[in-house]
Amino acid sequence: MTDGYRAAVVGATGAVGNTMIRVLEERDFPVRKLTLLASARSAGKKLQFKGQEIRIEELDENSFKQIELALFSAGASVSKLFAPIAASDSCVVVDNSSAFRMEPGIPLVVPEVNPYDVEKNAGIIANPNCSTIQMVVALKPIYDEVGIKRIVVSTYQAVSGTGKRAMEELSEQIRAIVDGKTIENEVYPHQIAFNCLPHIGKFLPNGYTEEEMKMVNETRKILGDPHIQVSATTVRVPVYYAHSETVNIETRKKITAEQVRALLEKAPGVKVLDDPEKFIYPMPLAATGRDETFVGRIREDTSIENGIDFWVVADNIRKGAATNAVQIAELLNEKKLIKRK
Amino acid sequence: MTDGYRAAVVGATGAVGNTMIRVLEERDFPVRKLTLLASARSAGKKLQFKGQEIRIEELDENSFKQIELALFSAGASVSKLFAPIAASDSCVVVDNSSAFRMEPGIPLVVPEVNPYDVEKNAGIIANPNCSTIQMVVALKPIYDEVGIKRIVVSTYQAVSGTGKRAMEELSEQIRAIVDGKTIENEVYPHQIAFNCLPHIGKFLPNGYTEEEMKMVNETRKILGDPHIQVSATTVRVPVYYAHSETVNIETRKKITAEQVRALLEKAPGVKVLDDPEKFIYPMPLAATGRDETFVGRIREDTSIENGIDFWVVADNIRKGAATNAVQIAELLNEKKLIKRK
Repeated sequence: MTDGYRAAVVGATGAVGNTMIRVLEERDFPVRKLTLLASARSAGKKLQFKGQEIRIEELDENSFKQIELALFSAGASVSKLFAPIAASDSCVVVDNSSAFRMEPGIPLVVPEVNPYDVEKNAGIIANPNCSTIQMVVALKPIYDEVGIKRIVVSTYQAVSGTGKRAMEELSEQIRAIVDGKTIENEVYPHQIAFNCLPHIGKFLPNGYTEEEMKMVNETRKILGDPHIQVSATTVRVPVYYAHSETVNIETRKKITAEQVRALLEKAPGVKVLDDPEKFIYPMPLAATGRDETFVGRIREDTSIENGIDFWVVADNIRKGAATNAVQIAELLNEKKLIKRK
Repeated sequence: MTDGYRAAVVGATGAVGNTMIRVLEERDFPVRKLTLLASARSAGKKLQFKGQEIRIEELDENSFKQIELALFSAGASVSKLFAPIAASDSCVVVDNSSAFRMEPGIPLVVPEVNPYDVEKNAGIIANPNCSTIQMVVALKPIYDEVGIKRIVVSTYQAVSGTGKRAMEELSEQIRAIVDGKTIENEVYPHQIAFNCLPHIGKFLPNGYTEEEMKMVNETRKILGDPHIQVSATTVRVPVYYAHSETVNIETRKKITAEQVRALLEKAPGVKVLDDPEKFIYPMPLAATGRDETFVGRIREDTSIENGIDFWVVADNIRKGAATNAVQIAELLNEKKLIKRK
């Protein structure tokens, strides 16, 4: 592997960082040396990569001198501070945080949707929000065929999107209920076990949450169409992995459910599961650990002239984060956009 | 209570039937004698009503000779067979099944929405589907003020809507997961614990489910407006009680979120919980065991000219079934539409 890159994962101990390491391995991304970076708290811990133990190093401003490619997943404040340092050291950054997504000049990329956008990068490429990624993967073939005027989306989001502590909190609450003990909550403002919280991210003055507005703004940027109208409601449900979404769209021209199914069946990264009478439809449990975006329940919505309804599910930690980031790295590699040091 | 009615609950042992007995008691509905009816399997069992033990009797064609009011919740086939027999015995029926809901001439009533419809009854009044009831309670004040053109609704439905066995199945699956045992499913075609199933009711040729089409057709009938367009996606989530819904509407005239909030704050049966920055919004756990319809996350949807988004939650067994049925009985009593025998 002497022809691979000197790569780094920043935030290696988090749910996404951990999966980035797994996905680099699974997809056999060309890595000559993998550096794992994290906060002082995690430095010294060891993680496995391709059978080797790698000691986690503390992230600082000198971390990127030797690194050619860095995948960041350590939160927006870490990215804001360190991604520009990495970029100025000629290390190309794929950033999973929200820090740069809406910055003009920073590409926001889903490889199945807007791969060409990676080319105009100034050292940082943003990985979109999980709930946006799976929706645009499913929308892109329809958008290209008939155009899309408006999207109404409701989400059913897994606790892993909040991080490891949220997953533990759900498990602890379930165990407390089974054992008849007091239920505690710390990560979420209310119990998540056997509940639904219509609350993901901060509330904004317009009444929508940050998560909901990400779906509006990121969809426009990724599809390169500021005229697409999006209304989103994002909801946390007691599921560990994989986000589900009901998507209702108004297209510019008429398209049938059959045509949508045919388009999606040949779309990259999409797996159509749509034989409901045989109980075949996407579900978060079945999407867990998978890299595809699963689409089903495709039907014509006759409540408007050109309407389509569907249900889309993807593993939020994989396609919604780690896998998409590694796919961006693959694109950068193909297009020879990673500089050797 | 010699001035009360001779009332019966048909399907007394089910989740809804049981709650009907509780709600008759709680609301002190005038009952002189309560008869509990069920299948042969449950006959002989005893249930409590106002401190008295009542022995369940087997339902047959002679059950209604002495009964003046019967609340049915034993499934559509039982209703189809026995509700007309009861009606022909001058016993007024409030039927919670889907058997008669869309029959012309049979009123489909939500007391906060179309109380006047009970008057034109021929002995049977249908109780709408749970997911429809809570939506129309929230929509009615908006409909009256500015009209509604189109509704896009996605549901997050509790397992109690399927019945007692579904609730046990969720509990058994949770316990199996905690104990590291094999997870079994029988009621649902897939595991419901930590999962979402985009599948409620049978699939129809248009790709929608029966549950989804109930939301379309019942909404039109209850609001008395065949022009309202509705697109619904109904999803089962691992919650025991209370359905949640994201509702996106296009009104005929402009209305602000503030105006909607003011209308709903004075609407009968509605409780507005809408101070999200203080983590105040409706949730299924908080709605469990309550009779109100809870509305929050009210905001203007700028993706169309006259758009409003909100989130509505209600206990599917109470307001979505038993409470609404008892409220219909109260209306019949007020309007002197229950015949004495």
